[in-house]
Amino acid sequence: MMGKAVGLITEYNPFHNGHQYHLQQAKQLTQADTVIAVMSGNFVQRGEPALYDKWQRSAAAVENGVDLVLELPVAFAIQPGPFFAQGAVEILVAAGVSEIVFGAEHAEWDFMALAKAIQQAPDDSQIFQQYDQPYASSYNQMLKERFKIEITSPNDWLGLSYAFALLALGQADQVQLRAIQRQGSAYHAVELHPQQFASATALRQALQNDHLNVEQLALYVPKGTQRLFLEQAPLDWQPVKQWSLLKYIVMTREITELEQIYQLNDGLAQRLQKTVQAYWQLEVLDWDDFMQSFKSKRYTYSRLQRNLLYVLLNITQNEMEFAMQHLYLRPLAFNVQGQAWLKALRKQATLPVIGRVNQENSKTILKLDVRAGRLYEYFQPNHQVSNKDVHQHPFILKGASHEMEFK
Amino acid sequence: MMGKAVGLITEYNPFHNGHQYHLQQAKQLTQADTVIAVMSGNFVQRGEPALYDKWQRSAAAVENGVDLVLELPVAFAIQPGPFFAQGAVEILVAAGVSEIVFGAEHAEWDFMALAKAIQQAPDDSQIFQQYDQPYASSYNQMLKERFKIEITSPNDWLGLSYAFALLALGQADQVQLRAIQRQGSAYHAVELHPQQFASATALRQALQNDHLNVEQLALYVPKGTQRLFLEQAPLDWQPVKQWSLLKYIVMTREITELEQIYQLNDGLAQRLQKTVQAYWQLEVLDWDDFMQSFKSKRYTYSRLQRNLLYVLLNITQNEMEFAMQHLYLRPLAFNVQGQAWLKALRKQATLPVIGRVNQENSKTILKLDVRAGRLYEYFQPNHQVSNKDVHQHPFILKGASHEMEFK
Repeated sequence: MMGKAVGLITEYNPFHNGHQYHLQQAKQLTQADTVIAVMSGNFVQRGEPALYDKWQRSAAAVENGVDLVLELPVAFAIQPGPFFAQGAVEILVAAGVSEIVFGAEHAEWDFMALAKAIQQAPDDSQIFQQYDQPYASSYNQMLKERFKIEITSPNDWLGLSYAFALLALGQADQVQLRAIQRQGSAYHAVELHPQQFASATALRQALQNDHLNVEQLALYVPKGTQRLFLEQAPLDWQPVKQWSLLKYIVMTREITELEQIYQLNDGLAQRLQKTVQAYWQLEVLDWDDFMQSFKSKRYTYSRLQRNLLYVLLNITQNEMEFAMQHLYLRPLAFNVQGQAWLKALRKQATLPVIGRVNQENSKTILKLDVRAGRLYEYFQPNHQVSNKDVHQHPFILKGASHEMEFK
Repeated sequence: MMGKAVGLITEYNPFHNGHQYHLQQAKQLTQADTVIAVMSGNFVQRGEPALYDKWQRSAAAVENGVDLVLELPVAFAIQPGPFFAQGAVEILVAAGVSEIVFGAEHAEWDFMALAKAIQQAPDDSQIFQQYDQPYASSYNQMLKERFKIEITSPNDWLGLSYAFALLALGQADQVQLRAIQRQGSAYHAVELHPQQFASATALRQALQNDHLNVEQLALYVPKGTQRLFLEQAPLDWQPVKQWSLLKYIVMTREITELEQIYQLNDGLAQRLQKTVQAYWQLEVLDWDDFMQSFKSKRYTYSRLQRNLLYVLLNITQNEMEFAMQHLYLRPLAFNVQGQAWLKALRKQATLPVIGRVNQENSKTILKLDVRAGRLYEYFQPNHQVSNKDVHQHPFILKGASHEMEFK
């Protein structure tokens, strides 16, 4: 490949000044010519649809200075941290990045060294493998005893997951993992403070509660994202639609069918059926209330939230396993720089590069993403473009990106 | 059994003066002490939900003078005439009726004699077996040549189907089939004429378009049905709900899964997928327009309408076959007379008599009806009683029925 590429692992929901800072830091730190972002598709890790679809969000990201956006397939995007990290890192490695830069609460830590050290203790690392358990406390216990540290921020957890992923791929020495200090709002901060970097959560809430006008918006998000907001309102995600579908699915499918759904095992299908029947008569329900009844000590809230999305997407155990074993590089948006990198990549990538969706791949490796794209459209009122995953071409930005204006 | 029972095959959607006439003629003609009606459940033959659920409609029927209402299971209720007739007749025979009285356009015909004569010609009777084809014309060609008659009315077709069903059960001589002349509006007449018997179609339209007030209503429907209307508005069936579910199902299920649905074979699954995708972007569509695109020469409109209901109910080929092979007698409503008949019946019925829904039968022989009950509730806004098929007890009318007032 010509030059050097740095990789970012993102959801961009939406791309805000914090992401802009992350992008600029990554460039300055690595002096890379090309920035490649792997980005969740239409649904994000918490098990919800994104505010804008993957085509819109990736276009905004390129307008904001990213050179190439590759899709993180739904099979990895809607997974707990370790799987999410595994898919993202494998894609960036196959895309030829030599460094991965991520934001952390403790940027001073050497996450790779920590991961290697943990791997020395197979018993303890087992704990880490129990993805679906709320394992943080027991795990932190171990970390405290052995390494005198505690991991409390989601970003630090992810950083460690990236390191484990590189180790699993045997790329620990080829690809450098670099943490940068997160600035401004922590990920979950819910209030907006002008001049600060808004957290995605705060932006989402401000947008959905309609507090934000264009002038205010400009304080928090760069040009590309502003255009997005001006063109179209973000998806107004209403759990009532999810509830309506859940009711329908649970009542028309036998338990044995429900148990085919990925991770809806160990009695979860029965538990879901019981819970849905308890709320049966409600047309509109308090989603958190429902989730609290569905929740058990054994599973985290977000695990179950993702689980319900697997149900809506009708993803079976087999389909998920197949998808996780058949990763690919799917460009969603790029500029001329990214286009050049992509051209070189096609010759030597270790994963298939998806140019266009066709009869064959839409029924095999792209199946779940096409399905997720349709469900996303289902949740969009009066969507104009239909079956977008099949028809949409990647966004190509000719000439300089808006990013210059932020330099 | 004590006394004599006459059987009626009905949908009662809703029970109107025409049904009242049918009921009274049946009693006078047969001098039976007990009138047993087999009635479609929550969905009717055209593949739509009934205006009131089966519990409400059967209660009204008993208030209007029927002694015992048995459910025609969904596996037979949502089928073409011959299957519909087969299930209904088998239930009435098992319920111990000695006569079946039905309304026909040509009451003077001897339907049983006709059926026997047709059976002499195996080749031609084959034509009759092709339930799903629009076979009427070729069949009528044969009837004209051999018997100098033509069958044009749905009721005459059904009459012939009842005869074939009795023959198939070897009950042609034990159970007498009696046709009575249909009065007033033909089944499909769409205008209301006071003093006439309103057709179900006309009543449905008048009700759904809100033209009818209580006084006018009294001209067309007996007391029991009036009470029903005064208590609650009929179900406002909106194809938009069906469309929303169809979109969801088609987009989240693979063709191979769709092909498991009963009768969604021979390329119909692909055809459905193509048609749904063509209308994809519409939130609300013109249902007839959609159906015309889905329709092909090969299948009748109502066959496809039923087919879409199989899809919504997620009824597989195997489930349907099992249900059709496991008929039962399920009382929905009865008066003291019907209760006595039921008591005697329990001792000697050739089909299981379902007292209450339990863990076992709700997962086996009642599975599809419980599922249909849930889907019906799903279409009911703010339904008060939930999962009715599991909890509801039959309606029992003590003392005299309103019917007296009509004598």
